[in-house]
Amino acid sequence: MRHSLLAGGKRIRPVLALATCEALGRDPAELMPAAAAIELVHTYSLIHDDLPAMDDDDLRRGRPTCHKLFGEDTAILAGDALFAEAVRLVAERQPGGDATRVGILLEISRATGVGGMVGGQYLDLSDAGSASAAALRRVHALKTGRLMACAVHCALVLARPAPDVDAALRLFARELGLLFQIVDDILDVEGSEEELGKAVGADAARGKVTYVSVHGLEGARRRAEEAHARALAALATMPGPAEDLVGIADLTFARQH
Amino acid sequence: MRHSLLAGGKRIRPVLALATCEALGRDPAELMPAAAAIELVHTYSLIHDDLPAMDDDDLRRGRPTCHKLFGEDTAILAGDALFAEAVRLVAERQPGGDATRVGILLEISRATGVGGMVGGQYLDLSDAGSASAAALRRVHALKTGRLMACAVHCALVLARPAPDVDAALRLFARELGLLFQIVDDILDVEGSEEELGKAVGADAARGKVTYVSVHGLEGARRRAEEAHARALAALATMPGPAEDLVGIADLTFARQH
Repeated sequence: MRHSLLAGGKRIRPVLALATCEALGRDPAELMPAAAAIELVHTYSLIHDDLPAMDDDDLRRGRPTCHKLFGEDTAILAGDALFAEAVRLVAERQPGGDATRVGILLEISRATGVGGMVGGQYLDLSDAGSASAAALRRVHALKTGRLMACAVHCALVLARPAPDVDAALRLFARELGLLFQIVDDILDVEGSEEELGKAVGADAARGKVTYVSVHGLEGARRRAEEAHARALAALATMPGPAEDLVGIADLTFARQH
Repeated sequence: MRHSLLAGGKRIRPVLALATCEALGRDPAELMPAAAAIELVHTYSLIHDDLPAMDDDDLRRGRPTCHKLFGEDTAILAGDALFAEAVRLVAERQPGGDATRVGILLEISRATGVGGMVGGQYLDLSDAGSASAAALRRVHALKTGRLMACAVHCALVLARPAPDVDAALRLFARELGLLFQIVDDILDVEGSEEELGKAVGADAARGKVTYVSVHGLEGARRRAEEAHARALAALATMPGPAEDLVGIADLTFARQH
């Protein structure tokens, strides 16, 4: 659990949760347990994704994957336990009262279950190579977008902003998730193993449908640009400082170059 | 998920949760979401346990295991999704207000994480064959006992009984979990594959430490008898009808014959 959780990585989900708190004019420290829980959940999903029965990856964040180092049995259990500990973290430590805890656990469980991350993984496994552009967008929205959006939604549960701010941040979350996935697909074609800390060309080798395989490299870049612009536009009217959210969108966009 | 969840089985955990509600003088229907969630969690743990990298079982509840029918990748995801849906079920539907929902999710996450079921599984994997009788009891208490006790604890969270009743039911839960595990170990030696719906002699074949291998068949039977008696004694002063809890203890004890 420690090996995979403390291997570094971008921490984009927890940072996103904390930056959203800030944009809502709240102290980011108030959302720390939920932010950490989301990173635990993300890490559990990476551990299970990397298993031989799934993507069979040897390298993650520049280090051997959990099962390469500790065996498949331990890796399965490490993922399972990270999920349980994520729930415990929120149920035990999240400030804001029981309604906030329940609301956040609802966001996390919806984002990870059949209608979220794991449902997306399953669709990805079963549809690989045959999906249309629309199906691709749906799979990625579930698989990657939902948990990223969840980071934003958890801040909304805590801060309960006005409806227009709430809607703007939900839109921001969707566009950021989309941007993130498109850039990931571009990097799988264009990036270097050294920069990424994982094998490149893996998606293409598996015949997986990606934004690049469906829209071409230029089409994917254009779609990234549009998603980036829509994400920034959504941040126009925040009650608190939105620089960190802008920074996250900019950095996500800039990764492709 | 449906294949494994609806394969039958004893449903001892949810029944235990509902029977505890009744013994506390509350309507069992009030605990239905939590009771179902615990069965979802139990099913997820069976699916992951049966994987080739873990116990590598082909048969469960008299049917092919999840991975035999749907592949390892789908089985891993089915377990992951059952866990997420269990959390969602409680966060979305459990009656009794937010404090009850948080309390129950705390019980479930503690019972399943590092200090519970998954921690026990890990110890079981890493210590197999070399554990002392004390270590054996600890591993089983985590691996099997914690989730069984969790079913009782969830009813306590909902009903908040007087301290003496609370303590008596916690004791009952511990003894029942112990009894259940001892009888399971006896059945692995004495039972028939037909009765059990799974392979017998599997523990012995793997050189696993069990109550029978440590204490002998007679010693295990005596320990089952003692745990059964202590479980029944704990039920002496319940505010509501305790017949179903007595029945669960009696049936659990009687399985060995």
